[in-house]
Amino acid sequence: MLIKSIFGGKSEMTEASSKKCPVVLMTRIRLARNLSDTPFPGWAKAPQRKGVLETCLPAVASLTQMKRGITAEVEELSDLEKQILVERHLISRELSGSPEKAGVVISKDQSVSVMINEEDHLRIQVIKSGYRFKQAWNSVNGIDSSLEDELDYAFSSQIGFLTACPTNVGTGMRASAMMHLPALVISSQMEKVVRAVNQLGIAVRGLFGEGSDASGSIFQISNQTTLGESEQEIIKRLSSVLRTIIDQEMNAREKILEKDPNKLFDKIGRAYGILQNSHLLTSSECMNLASLVRFGVDLEMFPEKTRNIVDRMFIECQPGHIQHHAGKAIDSNERDAFRSQYLRNQFESIDKPVFTIQED
Amino acid sequence: MLIKSIFGGKSEMTEASSKKCPVVLMTRIRLARNLSDTPFPGWAKAPQRKGVLETCLPAVASLTQMKRGITAEVEELSDLEKQILVERHLISRELSGSPEKAGVVISKDQSVSVMINEEDHLRIQVIKSGYRFKQAWNSVNGIDSSLEDELDYAFSSQIGFLTACPTNVGTGMRASAMMHLPALVISSQMEKVVRAVNQLGIAVRGLFGEGSDASGSIFQISNQTTLGESEQEIIKRLSSVLRTIIDQEMNAREKILEKDPNKLFDKIGRAYGILQNSHLLTSSECMNLASLVRFGVDLEMFPEKTRNIVDRMFIECQPGHIQHHAGKAIDSNERDAFRSQYLRNQFESIDKPVFTIQED
Repeated sequence: MLIKSIFGGKSEMTEASSKKCPVVLMTRIRLARNLSDTPFPGWAKAPQRKGVLETCLPAVASLTQMKRGITAEVEELSDLEKQILVERHLISRELSGSPEKAGVVISKDQSVSVMINEEDHLRIQVIKSGYRFKQAWNSVNGIDSSLEDELDYAFSSQIGFLTACPTNVGTGMRASAMMHLPALVISSQMEKVVRAVNQLGIAVRGLFGEGSDASGSIFQISNQTTLGESEQEIIKRLSSVLRTIIDQEMNAREKILEKDPNKLFDKIGRAYGILQNSHLLTSSECMNLASLVRFGVDLEMFPEKTRNIVDRMFIECQPGHIQHHAGKAIDSNERDAFRSQYLRNQFESIDKPVFTIQED
Repeated sequence: MLIKSIFGGKSEMTEASSKKCPVVLMTRIRLARNLSDTPFPGWAKAPQRKGVLETCLPAVASLTQMKRGITAEVEELSDLEKQILVERHLISRELSGSPEKAGVVISKDQSVSVMINEEDHLRIQVIKSGYRFKQAWNSVNGIDSSLEDELDYAFSSQIGFLTACPTNVGTGMRASAMMHLPALVISSQMEKVVRAVNQLGIAVRGLFGEGSDASGSIFQISNQTTLGESEQEIIKRLSSVLRTIIDQEMNAREKILEKDPNKLFDKIGRAYGILQNSHLLTSSECMNLASLVRFGVDLEMFPEKTRNIVDRMFIECQPGHIQHHAGKAIDSNERDAFRSQYLRNQFESIDKPVFTIQED
């Protein structure tokens, strides 16, 4: 039942596309918050975790932003439901593996989700499609203020919000952008970029956070420090780094087209040919093919409507989503067959890419 | 000028296809012959080589089988012309690298070619499309008899025809079949097959003879010994081995379709998708893709007309043929681009493969 409402609704990630700034798929801000005088979830005893959940769940669920949303204890969710929520970035892997008395509240439009008893008592997250930190901040800040009226936050006037892990102390904020950087990957510049931004206190991770790989040339880029700066300053500093990365990606695209257009046409053409004709596709290969087609959309080789198809692929080709679509338990090989069938259907009506070299 | 007539004519290899026995692309018989009392080409001095060429070239050219054919000294041929003749199996790599006073005569229909001053004074070759040893033997035997009337062959009543290399002494005959064995390759059985047939005195080589790789899953299978048996006995023994290999290939095909049809559909579908959409293709990848599509034709996934296209690919995608089609000197990268363009055009009108699992 839960799953139905998730599938019925849109996802900020699948609605992510904007022709104006094709590089940033989505913007995300999350705040870590804890109740005062209560042990952090990792230290709390069962009754204390239960108490936190019983206090927070109704408080969050009654927010106006959560009207007609989903409220659930993690224990009530099936493995498949948890996996689908992880694939949609609505809960973390940590929460999905949580032993007991953890919960989540998700807004109807899936742009807001609040996890309870993850690493902190509260993790408030807002996702916005495209490059929209301002809107994401206004939204998450509003929710935070509303909750602060109801709950007693652990806060030190000297260092700010207290959190389970010292890396989150202060603002408790992590702002991140999901970026699609195919040209930097193709031209082997990502390593250099990662090194440079790390030195500026900015972290680069794969699509599914820490430790995940960057299949599909998608990277999550976020602030590493939460202390000593205001939220606005953190966002400003992050944004300036993101602008630089966008410029570098755009330069890399231009150079690839200038230097060896056939090599790019070949990659994009093959991706399209394989999506139309494969009969076995892993999610990782699928991500990489979708990434190349998305790059092709940016370069106007495919019609703009294709963008939405590939953006949905990034999420809908993940194992949990495929499993759900199949409607019955299937093994990994059957998933690969199902996934490729799904994509052949999706790509059937998409015309061959048109490759032209634009002269100055 | 020479090249024009080669391209104008058909090639037994490109006309090779038969639905009845799809595994054997073509049958080839060659005879090694030498003039008596004349040093073999490797030992002959320049005037002696010249003498052999001056004796043999007109004798061969005046055969009725060579009417309106091509007669050329190797020195007269450009590098590109030589390469194209090698790619069509009409001359050997050895002859194309021959220092001086070597020649070739090729029949108008390209089914007969006679090399002069290769390893032996005369190498008489007949190629027939499909599995046709009887016709090939009748043809090469007729030519041999006609030449014997004109030329004085080196022959020992005790051991038979004398040849430069002892491995050819006796009949001087090598009979070979060009076999397309994709299922044995996919199911990793070729090594086992090669070991077994080697023990029966049968050699297995790649598409372009000794030392060439088996790209496209195409193998040349031929007799290793030329002594102690009549020509008919050699052909009979070879044929019985070929029948066994054909059976094994057919069994392997059935098993693949039975065990994991999706894996095969995936390979064949992708090959088609790449041929329709790539922008850079090496000749080796091209051979492998053509091989998969040909397999698909055998399995009735593609219309029968596709067979001729892929059979032509095996020859026309070789570097020399591509270079000729381009009409100007191009480097390897440009050839890869030209090759893929050629194939996109060829495959534009070919419908998607139809995959159905036949129930018993």
